[in-house]
Amino acid sequence: MKQVLPILVVLLFGLNAAAQNIQSPNGKLSLSFGLTGDGEPTYQLSLVSKPIVRQSRLGIELKDQAGFSKGFSIVKADTSQKDETWEPVWGEVKQIRNHYRELTVTLQQAASKGGRLIIRFRLFDDGLGFRYEFPEQEGLKYFVVSDEMTEFNLTGDHKTFWIPGDYDTNEYAYFTTKLSEIEATKGEAFKDIAVKTIIGANAVQTPLMMKTADGLYINIHEAALVNYPAMNLAVNKQTFGLVSHLVPDPVGNKAYLQAPDKTPWRTIVVSDKAAEILASKLILNLNEPTRLQDTSWIKPQKYVGIWWGMHIGKYTWNYADVANIKLAETDWTKLKPNGRHGATTENTKRYIDFSAKHGFAGVLVEGWNVGWEDWFGKWKEEVFDFVTPYPDFNVTELQAYAAARGVKLIMHHETSSSVTNYERRMDEAYSFMKRHGYDSVKTGYVGKIIPRGEHHDGQWMVNHYVRVAEQTARHKIMLDVHEPVRPTGLHRTYPNWLASEAARGNEFNSGWSPAGNPPEHETILPFTRLMGGPMDFTPGILQIKFDDYQPERKGQLRTTVHSTLAKQLALYVTMYSPLQMAADLPEHYERFLDAFQFIKDVAVDWDDTQILEAEPGDYLTIARKAKNKDEWYLGAITDEQSRTADIALAYLTPQRWYVATLYTDAPTAHWQDNPMAYQIQNFLVNDQTRLKILLANGGGAAVSLKPASAEDMKKYKRYQ
Amino acid sequence: MKQVLPILVVLLFGLNAAAQNIQSPNGKLSLSFGLTGDGEPTYQLSLVSKPIVRQSRLGIELKDQAGFSKGFSIVKADTSQKDETWEPVWGEVKQIRNHYRELTVTLQQAASKGGRLIIRFRLFDDGLGFRYEFPEQEGLKYFVVSDEMTEFNLTGDHKTFWIPGDYDTNEYAYFTTKLSEIEATKGEAFKDIAVKTIIGANAVQTPLMMKTADGLYINIHEAALVNYPAMNLAVNKQTFGLVSHLVPDPVGNKAYLQAPDKTPWRTIVVSDKAAEILASKLILNLNEPTRLQDTSWIKPQKYVGIWWGMHIGKYTWNYADVANIKLAETDWTKLKPNGRHGATTENTKRYIDFSAKHGFAGVLVEGWNVGWEDWFGKWKEEVFDFVTPYPDFNVTELQAYAAARGVKLIMHHETSSSVTNYERRMDEAYSFMKRHGYDSVKTGYVGKIIPRGEHHDGQWMVNHYVRVAEQTARHKIMLDVHEPVRPTGLHRTYPNWLASEAARGNEFNSGWSPAGNPPEHETILPFTRLMGGPMDFTPGILQIKFDDYQPERKGQLRTTVHSTLAKQLALYVTMYSPLQMAADLPEHYERFLDAFQFIKDVAVDWDDTQILEAEPGDYLTIARKAKNKDEWYLGAITDEQSRTADIALAYLTPQRWYVATLYTDAPTAHWQDNPMAYQIQNFLVNDQTRLKILLANGGGAAVSLKPASAEDMKKYKRYQ
Repeated sequence: MKQVLPILVVLLFGLNAAAQNIQSPNGKLSLSFGLTGDGEPTYQLSLVSKPIVRQSRLGIELKDQAGFSKGFSIVKADTSQKDETWEPVWGEVKQIRNHYRELTVTLQQAASKGGRLIIRFRLFDDGLGFRYEFPEQEGLKYFVVSDEMTEFNLTGDHKTFWIPGDYDTNEYAYFTTKLSEIEATKGEAFKDIAVKTIIGANAVQTPLMMKTADGLYINIHEAALVNYPAMNLAVNKQTFGLVSHLVPDPVGNKAYLQAPDKTPWRTIVVSDKAAEILASKLILNLNEPTRLQDTSWIKPQKYVGIWWGMHIGKYTWNYADVANIKLAETDWTKLKPNGRHGATTENTKRYIDFSAKHGFAGVLVEGWNVGWEDWFGKWKEEVFDFVTPYPDFNVTELQAYAAARGVKLIMHHETSSSVTNYERRMDEAYSFMKRHGYDSVKTGYVGKIIPRGEHHDGQWMVNHYVRVAEQTARHKIMLDVHEPVRPTGLHRTYPNWLASEAARGNEFNSGWSPAGNPPEHETILPFTRLMGGPMDFTPGILQIKFDDYQPERKGQLRTTVHSTLAKQLALYVTMYSPLQMAADLPEHYERFLDAFQFIKDVAVDWDDTQILEAEPGDYLTIARKAKNKDEWYLGAITDEQSRTADIALAYLTPQRWYVATLYTDAPTAHWQDNPMAYQIQNFLVNDQTRLKILLANGGGAAVSLKPASAEDMKKYKRYQ
Repeated sequence: MKQVLPILVVLLFGLNAAAQNIQSPNGKLSLSFGLTGDGEPTYQLSLVSKPIVRQSRLGIELKDQAGFSKGFSIVKADTSQKDETWEPVWGEVKQIRNHYRELTVTLQQAASKGGRLIIRFRLFDDGLGFRYEFPEQEGLKYFVVSDEMTEFNLTGDHKTFWIPGDYDTNEYAYFTTKLSEIEATKGEAFKDIAVKTIIGANAVQTPLMMKTADGLYINIHEAALVNYPAMNLAVNKQTFGLVSHLVPDPVGNKAYLQAPDKTPWRTIVVSDKAAEILASKLILNLNEPTRLQDTSWIKPQKYVGIWWGMHIGKYTWNYADVANIKLAETDWTKLKPNGRHGATTENTKRYIDFSAKHGFAGVLVEGWNVGWEDWFGKWKEEVFDFVTPYPDFNVTELQAYAAARGVKLIMHHETSSSVTNYERRMDEAYSFMKRHGYDSVKTGYVGKIIPRGEHHDGQWMVNHYVRVAEQTARHKIMLDVHEPVRPTGLHRTYPNWLASEAARGNEFNSGWSPAGNPPEHETILPFTRLMGGPMDFTPGILQIKFDDYQPERKGQLRTTVHSTLAKQLALYVTMYSPLQMAADLPEHYERFLDAFQFIKDVAVDWDDTQILEAEPGDYLTIARKAKNKDEWYLGAITDEQSRTADIALAYLTPQRWYVATLYTDAPTAHWQDNPMAYQIQNFLVNDQTRLKILLANGGGAAVSLKPASAEDMKKYKRYQ
């Protein structure tokens, strides 16, 4: 027995403390889980044998009861693996492989009646996801999370692409600094963001993109953010350790949970190739499949809209120039129209005509509904009713007009962040939509949240965004959300949720933001914001230098987009979204119909995507195959530096000639000095061709590739 | 010019500082308004020449901008008067006279661009109402009230009937002390109130009832509380000064207003006769008339209900005995019923039969809808859906059953204070009601409010209660609200809002409250809580000593109501409400059918009310004439002391004999020792008769008076 006993002891107790290891399917990544001497759960992520994340602690604190941070033993450690393929309703690719090894550790605190915690790890070839799970147990039914202490202890002073941690906004331009240089409370561009709740000097948001000195790319984010607040990261600038910082509610609590329950997945995507970060499907794979049986009504689309005109000051959202509106008491027919209202019946017809002529599916109209006279910055609850049009916007007339031309009007619900008001009214508002032929809505959350004290990124609002996704789905309505929490892959579960803004979009290049967007901005966003989901970036401003519609503000207002014209076309490929706006004014497009052709042609749903060249903050070259067509669309963009994009076409169907239409910067183009100089050339290409395209400073190029007809073969020359 | 100038100066500047005075129509009350040396507005209220309220300051502080508290001059002082009569849709009397003198002072701060404030005073024969008004002006559009400093500087250490100032509850038993002895943070009975937010040792709620050493009665409250937080009062125990203390929102602000705007009326009802306090219509007169064109669907009513059975532990609200329900995920048919569910089809049919047999209009059923298994105390948002019945409650079968018997089921919506959930669901819930034959709903707000950080008595919730009143009116639904902010006369504007609880009702006399209600409780409530509106007190428990349905809790649970049986009948008259419950179990009433007859007979809508004897905290004798009938109903109650009620009948139609049916305490009755001993006697009476009825300790008497028929004249003897 003497010999057996120690073995038994090891067997019995060995599990309690022994490190648990799994490797990714290709064996290169390894995850190690263990407990410290105090029974604190820790994990470690390595590439081959090199740490990416050093030993880092995990834990959850609860309010008014014992938390889940130490005193654990390992009760069970199960491993499994999965290898399946699934098809998204729409996406960058037709099929997605979900291939991982899973480690599920069940932990038990000795001291506690309950004290049981599960941590589930999924290790993919390109990264790790893990989450906390709270099984039903004695002493744990309803509980309140007061803090989460998930550490990501990094191995060096990595180059980091970051924006300030904030409970309410994600509309910052990116900073690129070392971890040790993060200082989140000072910034020039902050003045153009209306509602901010910056956490502090040392906190940043996710997705967080990093590059190590060794050339390893690391991206930290979360997947499937439901029923929990968003995770920011507090940075230790000496140790390069990050720790989770959750968004609080009005009374300082973080999350209200009910066992059995779970947190979102914390994700770490890793590769030595920047392109593989962008190609990663880890976050989508961690999200729940959709439960919708019928998704036939969900259609990726391109749209135009009465929108840019307001941002550049040509139109107004409001009908009259008055302040101090009480919604329920106003007789709108008695107000004097200011003569610059964008959303008039007449103007909308013009946009519908343009849309029909050029084959766009929809026309967004902002400012159609009463309340815009004093909607902004008042923290006003009864701000909009979402069903009463202005006197100059005829809902039924436009319904018929659009239907006769095969165009849909896109509804606009700016909530002004008065969310209790929106939730009271949304059912009626969605019924109104369906009655009047609308099947898509763009929502907005500009302003401080009501319920007062809640934040855009807190648990209550996270649940609200999901309620809207569910409710619109019930009405078979497609959804585009502006100013919400940044996405985390939920469009897999809610495929009617086509896109979100949730970052600093092209609108910051219109007049009202003095800073605008720096030229590197669009080379960073795919590595950060877009890791969680598509962005309604609203590209396609071809009138780069636009008129000054508010000369009384001369000198204070910019009138130029920080981009070349060709780059604006490239963005339709590099800035993935199933919902893309041709954002400029029709009258501007009519000046550039040749360039506009790319926008008309480009697809919004894809069979395949090739990330050809990629460096965060510097450049991006992407090729995508249109769904169910033998057409490819390429986009190449650069930052403030000029470069030559080197574009292989090896993915084309072999032994077939294509017409490549190249929309490029003219040789003399420059984002500041000469942004609108572009050229269009056509060539015959095949899978052997390698395109070399000069991109101007702050420039880009867009290429469409369609099978060459016999006529094309005669008309065009081969690319040299 | 020398002589003229001073006169001109006086004329020009005299208005700025000169006191403004008005008197009540009968000349006995006078109000004086003036400014201090610092330009602070002040008022003073006197009876004949004797101060009731000494010079007291008025003022409003704003957040982030100059407030309205000092530096004023008087720009204008207008006086007017009104004398009109109006008819309420239902009430204690058929007609109400609105007779007052009004002083409206317009004040201007010199320093400010805007700085204009209006204070409107209305002086009635029985008291004063005043409010602040904020006219449209430069610099004032959207503004935030950070504090209100309305003083009520009293003249002595008055005897005061008070409950603690609290942001969330009004369910305290009353304290009777001098002002100097107020200590609001210690109390035995506090343990049985689930959600409390006591302000502090020196704060009390309104309505606040006082009696001076000289025998003057003073009641302070507010009227027309809309779009503003409730007013509590902070007490200075040395100076006997009170100052307003408003309920804050989650971020510490008090009210979000938009010019032109106004506060509620602050009211001071005054009389040397306690009866006149109760008879005062000042608060109703300050409320807005209703805008409803058609009020024919609004019907005062009496109801029974599956309710008391749960409070005494015979039934449960919940269907199964499980905890940890997730509403959307539960298959209710799979749960094991606990066999004690109150709201079953069978039990409801029994109540419908009882109701039909005895002529009650409606049957309330609590616990009909899923979610009761773990609804309480979890601060749970998705707690009820208000449309899904339990497996043992057949909505359509009961709809038909009730309709066939001419009885209405009364809907129950316990919100559990998850108000965002209720607001999302209420439209569907009201439609569900109308589809299934319900035209009345009892709502409840048990628990901590969601939106988290809001309070039951804050501006947001005040607006919610009004939204519910408006929304139910749109659906032609009558409303009874439990656990809201205490009423302030809004039932004039929203006559479908029949009653509220908003105080410590008869349910505290059931088993779960160890303290119960003291016998004086019902002699105080009409002078406090009921000054603002009717109370759904739920009287009529005749089985005073009831069975112990939870013997496992023996010794911890009371099984007796702190009242005699006869007092329970009297309460139908002394506790005014157009909605009255016969609250006991049918099987209990069947034991006391002779006493129950009073409950069946008593009216709930009145042509006239006579307050015959009244002393707050001691006794109350009231007579009321049934609407459109020559019938009177009398109620007399006492506190823990026995007394003889001396009841004149001078208001009866002259030269007519009536049968008086007297339901009284038996001579040996006592609220503690022998509460169920009662007797019923019939006599012939007329307008010359004076009834003298002995009320037991903690007892009462109820009398019905109906015209005597020829047969009655032979059958009964005259009262001696």
